[in-house]
Amino acid sequence: MSSTTLNSYTIGIVGATGAVGKEIRNCIEDRGVLKVDKLRFFGSKRSAGKTVSTKNSGDVDIELFSVDAARECDVVFLAVDGDFALEHAKAISAGDDGAIVIDNSSAFRYEPDIPLVVPEINGECTKGNKLIANPNCTTAIGLMAIWPLIKAFGVKKILMSTYQASSGAGQPGMDELTNGTKQYLEGDLMSHDGIKNEIFAYPLPFNVIPQIDKFQENGYTKEEMKVTWESRKICDLGEDIPISCSAVRIPTIRAHSEVIVMETENKVDLKIARQVLEDAPGVVVKDDPDTLTYPMPLTATGSYDVEVGRIRKSLAFGDYGLEFFVCGDQLLRGAALNAVLVAEEMDRNGALSSSSE
Amino acid sequence: MSSTTLNSYTIGIVGATGAVGKEIRNCIEDRGVLKVDKLRFFGSKRSAGKTVSTKNSGDVDIELFSVDAARECDVVFLAVDGDFALEHAKAISAGDDGAIVIDNSSAFRYEPDIPLVVPEINGECTKGNKLIANPNCTTAIGLMAIWPLIKAFGVKKILMSTYQASSGAGQPGMDELTNGTKQYLEGDLMSHDGIKNEIFAYPLPFNVIPQIDKFQENGYTKEEMKVTWESRKICDLGEDIPISCSAVRIPTIRAHSEVIVMETENKVDLKIARQVLEDAPGVVVKDDPDTLTYPMPLTATGSYDVEVGRIRKSLAFGDYGLEFFVCGDQLLRGAALNAVLVAEEMDRNGALSSSSE
Repeated sequence: MSSTTLNSYTIGIVGATGAVGKEIRNCIEDRGVLKVDKLRFFGSKRSAGKTVSTKNSGDVDIELFSVDAARECDVVFLAVDGDFALEHAKAISAGDDGAIVIDNSSAFRYEPDIPLVVPEINGECTKGNKLIANPNCTTAIGLMAIWPLIKAFGVKKILMSTYQASSGAGQPGMDELTNGTKQYLEGDLMSHDGIKNEIFAYPLPFNVIPQIDKFQENGYTKEEMKVTWESRKICDLGEDIPISCSAVRIPTIRAHSEVIVMETENKVDLKIARQVLEDAPGVVVKDDPDTLTYPMPLTATGSYDVEVGRIRKSLAFGDYGLEFFVCGDQLLRGAALNAVLVAEEMDRNGALSSSSE
Repeated sequence: MSSTTLNSYTIGIVGATGAVGKEIRNCIEDRGVLKVDKLRFFGSKRSAGKTVSTKNSGDVDIELFSVDAARECDVVFLAVDGDFALEHAKAISAGDDGAIVIDNSSAFRYEPDIPLVVPEINGECTKGNKLIANPNCTTAIGLMAIWPLIKAFGVKKILMSTYQASSGAGQPGMDELTNGTKQYLEGDLMSHDGIKNEIFAYPLPFNVIPQIDKFQENGYTKEEMKVTWESRKICDLGEDIPISCSAVRIPTIRAHSEVIVMETENKVDLKIARQVLEDAPGVVVKDDPDTLTYPMPLTATGSYDVEVGRIRKSLAFGDYGLEFFVCGDQLLRGAALNAVLVAEEMDRNGALSSSSE
C-alpha cells in the first residue's frame, strides 16, 4: 500500500488490456473523479513487459502480477476471471495494509460477508470492507431501473428476458461475432457452414443462443440465477419475492437490452414511475412513442447511463404491474463503470484514504 | 371458380413474388398434400406479365389482378397488405361461386364472424367459411407451444418477450439488414453513421428495436396487442386471462424467437409438459442441457416445425408456472405454412371441394 496525500491514489488494474480493463482505465481518466497518483497495470507472463498508452499517465508498463506488488496499491481492480480472483483477491486485501480490491468476477458475489455493490443502490455497504464484488452485467443494468421502482411501488415479483451482447464474452466474443458475420455475408446467405464458434456454443451471426453460462439443476442457467441471487442481495429482497430470468445471447456488440416486468405491491401511477426514473442517478428515460424514442444499443453503447423506456402498465398485472425496456452498455454500467463508481463511493466515504494513511 | 374433379384445385396467389408468396408456392409444391390442377399468380401492373418458374407447374405468368379472375380459383392466398385485402377479399369470396380466400394480413383477424385459424388448434372453425384470416407470425409461432400446455395444465396468465427477425418486414426488411450489416462492417466498427433505414425505424445491424408496428394508447404496440387479441380468439380464452407481450426486433434473418412464461391453473408436471409438446403436431422439442440442445434461428430457419426448449418450472410462479423458449421460421409457421395448412384442413373437411362443385 502506497503512502499518498490529498486523496490521490495508486490505482492498480489486473487485466488492463482486456475489454473491461480498458474501460476501467477510460472511466477513471474520462471521469476524473478518482484522483490518480499513479496507475499500475498487472498481467500474466504473456503480457508483462508490454506498454499501454494512457490519456493522463503516459505510457505505463505492464508488470508481472504479484500479490506483494498489488498490495502496494490503494485500490486494485480485478478484471480477470473468477479463478484468479479466488486465488489472489483475499491475499491482496488482507490486513490493515492491504489494498482495497474491487473484483469483477462472480467469485465472491454470494459470500455473505462480502458486499455486492451497485453504488446508487447499496453504496453504503462498502464501509469497512476491503474486498468488494462487482455484480453481473445483466443484473447491474436492470437494477438501475428496477430499484427506483421498488422504492416507489414495492415489489412482489420480477420477470426478465435479456438480449445480451457479444461483449459479455469480452473482446474475443465481439471479434468472433464481427468476423463470423463478415464470413457469413461473403458466403452463401442463409448458411452458417464453416463459421467458427470457439467463444460461443454456436455461431452467433444472425442467430440467437438461449444459453449463457452453465445449466443448473432447476433448468435455469447460472447467468439467469445470477440475476435472481444478485438482485436479491443488492436490493435486500427476501426469498418470498420471486425473480425469474431468461438470458439470451443475440448478435449485438456491447449493449445489453432487457424486457422487465414487475408485479408491484402498491398501485402503479405511471407519472410517478416516469418521475422516479427521471430522478434516478445513472438512468436516462428514453420514452416517447410520438418521436419513436426508446432504449436501443444504437444509443446506449458508450453511454454511462442506462436507458429506460417503453414504460407502461403491464397487462399481466393490471394496476399492480409495470413493463418496460432497458438498455445499457455492458462494459460500462455492466462492469467497468460500476467498479469505478464503487471506488469513487469509497473515496467519498473515506475507505480509500484510510487505506492509504 | 373453376370446375375441377378428384379434389384437384385451381390455386391463386396474390403477391406470389413476395417473401411470403414465394414460401406459399414452396409449401404447396414441397408438401404435395393439396392437389394442384392449376396455379395462377396475380399481381399489380408492375409485376403483371412477368413469369415465375415453379417446381411442378412450369413457368407461370403473373396475371393482372382482378376480382373476377381471382373468383375463378378454388382457393386464393392473399400475401399482400391489409388495405388490398380490405378492398378485395370479400368480393373474391362472396356468394356460392366465390373462391375460398386465406388472407395473410391483419385486415379481418378481429372480425367476430371471420375465423382466425391455426389449423392444429382451431381448424374446425374453417367449416362453412369462405374467408379465413391467417394469424400474426409471432402469435402463430408461440401458440404452437402454448396451446398443448394450456390443454394440459390450464392457464391463468401468459407473458411473452419476442426476438423478431427482419423477415417480418418481408424481403426488403431482410435486404436492409444484410446490406446494412455489410456497410457497418466495411466502415468504422461501432458506428451506424450512414447506414440506411427505410424499412425499419432505425438501423437494425447489431441493434435492437423495441417497437414493431404502431403505438397504441395503452403504451403497447399493435404487434404486442396482436399477440393478446389473436391468442385470445384462436384459443378461445376469456378476458380474465391476461396476455402481455413485449415485441422486439433483433438483427436476425427469418426465424422469430420468444421467451414465454405461463402461469397455469393446475400444478405443473415437467415430464407431462415435455410429453404433450413432443406429441403436439408442428412442434419439435429441442431441450437437452447436457448436449446444449435448445431452439435457435440457426436450426429453426427453413423448418416447418416450431422448436421448443429451455422448458422449466418458472421461478416466477413456482409449481404453477412454466418458462420456455420457442423458435419458428417466420415465413413458414408464421405465415405461408400456416396458410397452406388451413387450405389442407379445408380440403380434408370438404370446404374446398364443395366450393368447386
